[in-house]
Amino acid sequence: MDTGRLEAFSDGVLAIIITIMVLELKVPHGADFPALWSLLPVFLSYVLSFVYLGIYWNNHHHMLQVASRVSGSILWANLHLLFWLSLVPIVTGWMGENNFAPAPTALYGVVLLIAAIAYWILQRAIIAEEEGESSLLAAAVGSDLKGKLSPVLYAVAIPSAFVHEGISGGLYVLVALIWLIPDRRIERALAKQRGHGNE
Amino acid sequence: MDTGRLEAFSDGVLAIIITIMVLELKVPHGADFPALWSLLPVFLSYVLSFVYLGIYWNNHHHMLQVASRVSGSILWANLHLLFWLSLVPIVTGWMGENNFAPAPTALYGVVLLIAAIAYWILQRAIIAEEEGESSLLAAAVGSDLKGKLSPVLYAVAIPSAFVHEGISGGLYVLVALIWLIPDRRIERALAKQRGHGNE
Amino acid sequence: MDTGRLEAFSDGVLAIIITIMVLELKVPHGADFPALWSLLPVFLSYVLSFVYLGIYWNNHHHMLQVASRVSGSILWANLHLLFWLSLVPIVTGWMGENNFAPAPTALYGVVLLIAAIAYWILQRAIIAEEEGESSLLAAAVGSDLKGKLSPVLYAVAIPSAFVHEGISGGLYVLVALIWLIPDRRIERALAKQRGHGNE
Amino acid sequence: MDTGRLEAFSDGVLAIIITIMVLELKVPHGADFPALWSLLPVFLSYVLSFVYLGIYWNNHHHMLQVASRVSGSILWANLHLLFWLSLVPIVTGWMGENNFAPAPTALYGVVLLIAAIAYWILQRAIIAEEEGESSLLAAAVGSDLKGKLSPVLYAVAIPSAFVHEGISGGLYVLVALIWLIPDRRIERALAKQRGHGNE
Repeated sequence: MDTGRLEAFSDGVLAIIITIMVLELKVPHGADFPALWSLLPVFLSYVLSFVYLGIYWNNHHHMLQVASRVSGSILWANLHLLFWLSLVPIVTGWMGENNFAPAPTALYGVVLLIAAIAYWILQRAIIAEEEGESSLLAAAVGSDLKGKLSPVLYAVAIPSAFVHEGISGGLYVLVALIWLIPDRRIERALAKQRGHGNE
Repeated sequence: MDTGRLEAFSDGVLAIIITIMVLELKVPHGADFPALWSLLPVFLSYVLSFVYLGIYWNNHHHMLQVASRVSGSILWANLHLLFWLSLVPIVTGWMGENNFAPAPTALYGVVLLIAAIAYWILQRAIIAEEEGESSLLAAAVGSDLKGKLSPVLYAVAIPSAFVHEGISGGLYVLVALIWLIPDRRIERALAKQRGHGNE
Repeated sequence: MDTGRLEAFSDGVLAIIITIMVLELKVPHGADFPALWSLLPVFLSYVLSFVYLGIYWNNHHHMLQVASRVSGSILWANLHLLFWLSLVPIVTGWMGENNFAPAPTALYGVVLLIAAIAYWILQRAIIAEEEGESSLLAAAVGSDLKGKLSPVLYAVAIPSAFVHEGISGGLYVLVALIWLIPDRRIERALAKQRGHGNE
Repeated sequence: MDTGRLEAFSDGVLAIIITIMVLELKVPHGADFPALWSLLPVFLSYVLSFVYLGIYWNNHHHMLQVASRVSGSILWANLHLLFWLSLVPIVTGWMGENNFAPAPTALYGVVLLIAAIAYWILQRAIIAEEEGESSLLAAAVGSDLKGKLSPVLYAVAIPSAFVHEGISGGLYVLVALIWLIPDRRIERALAKQRGHGNE
């Protein structure tokens, strides 16, 4: 199996997840701005999750560009990641509708943490299918500071929700900002390889 | 018609089915963990159906790789399969929301059983379009132990729901586990053919 | 613009329409078979609409295979068709939930009728973009018995709903059956052209 | 990264947005035509938004045809545009359900205005990635009358909603009509380039 259909299917699922999330933004009952104002926490949590899913889509695309074949373990590691990402809309809605109450805010971090682990598992599956540690992706991710920092920050954010939800919220925004800087490592490694090929 | 657009359409429908299923996971009303806990049966049935649809997507992809043309009968056999799979979200929601009560648990098995039959019909349609029984797919599926065992297990699970829903649930998990092992038969047959071509 | 992205977008919209229709099948409140039984009219109307959308997807695909370029008028004629098809889920739900009452059953026919006209407009736009009446598609559709018969049957079915809804329902099923036979005219014309090319 | 996957993902999101919007058209409770009649404002706002999203899909497609590479800034400018377009269904529903009341009608214009700005940002990002102001797209958009007129008309329409909602509604329809004429500028520039290439 080549990566084309896997990418297309993942894109489809991610596009649907990112879009059905907007269904949590229920049409307000009143026709005035106060009615709209009450949507603000749901809207803010929607913005945050939209950015997260955009980051996942972007990084997922970069990572799969390096993969040349799709084994059974890659396929299931990918579905496993999509499963946890598919829970983002519901935890987003729960967090927003309850105005960032402790339990929903903590759960949001739990889903992000497991999704990060699922992403890491997928990365290992692709590296294992390629030439092992010497593969292009392994070289590209290198020490992988971002990938190691994010779960740590999530793990701090989860219990922090019970101290003050602002800490967790701030940490979620921080991780998003760290990742918003696109992952140039893989791009650079690919560019270098092409450079070597041209020599 | 080539298989490209059929695959793309099927992928689209499967991606949507797998994702709208998460809409059955309604945002809980309370903001604490007991409110979340009440979602557990719906969550478990969601996990089970996600795995089943992942299996169908995976096997569907492998099967269509063998098909070279799409006849009218393949097209409608494929839509017929997608129809039954499109009922998975509602029976999943019904089973989960009623905490695996007998009738919903039995109905879940009925839909799985008919979907399995629909898959078998699609397989026959593809084999018929190719060179008949001597085709690559026919050779690959061979005695097709899994394909014959699953409907039998579903047929046992359906009445068992009225004895104890645990029996049915266990059988559904068992069939999923049997299929989680990816279908290497077709991969092997394809690899063998390529091997012959290279000789 | 080539037809690829138009086809992909149309497939996406059709896949979503066909799948969100299942959301009208609301999870029943009771956990027994009588609760399920009350879903029967909604289920039957879902089956009918699924078949109709399958027919549209199939014929749409055949028709676009003949088109070589996409002009602005083709693009908007296509969106116009998709608009009316996007109304199929709501009229399906309305008809099913009201147990095939006269007004919803008539409206269902109205949407089918306008969709058929929209399809015909799209067909004319493609023929106009190609070599006019002498084009492959014009030759393929020829006298177009099915295409002329369907609107007539819809036009009969709409007022009949106020006499007896069974007449309308029967006519909708009849039109679906007429179209279920795949449109071999275009396939034949394409095959003939390829035959001429090889001579 | 080439533009293929970006286009496919954007198409997917746009197809889903355009289709879930129909979910705001709730199945009416009565089974007669007065019940249907109450849906009219929601239906009219649905038609308007369907046309707007069709225009965005069309123009988006034309614009991306000119782009040859996808940088990080293009990718995020594109996601930014999709974010604002994803809010179209909810503001459509809010406007329709409240029968074009001032606040929802104004908000509809706000979302259209920001989406127009997001589209302009994406256009600048593509031009910057290509050869700067001398690029094909820069030449094609030229003075960009439509692109400059639309935000002005939205900016007039937003406060007008509090004077009379008919003014805003009329302006929204006017902008849609202006854009319905497909963007032939880019098509012409592309055709000219091909012409030069052939000389």
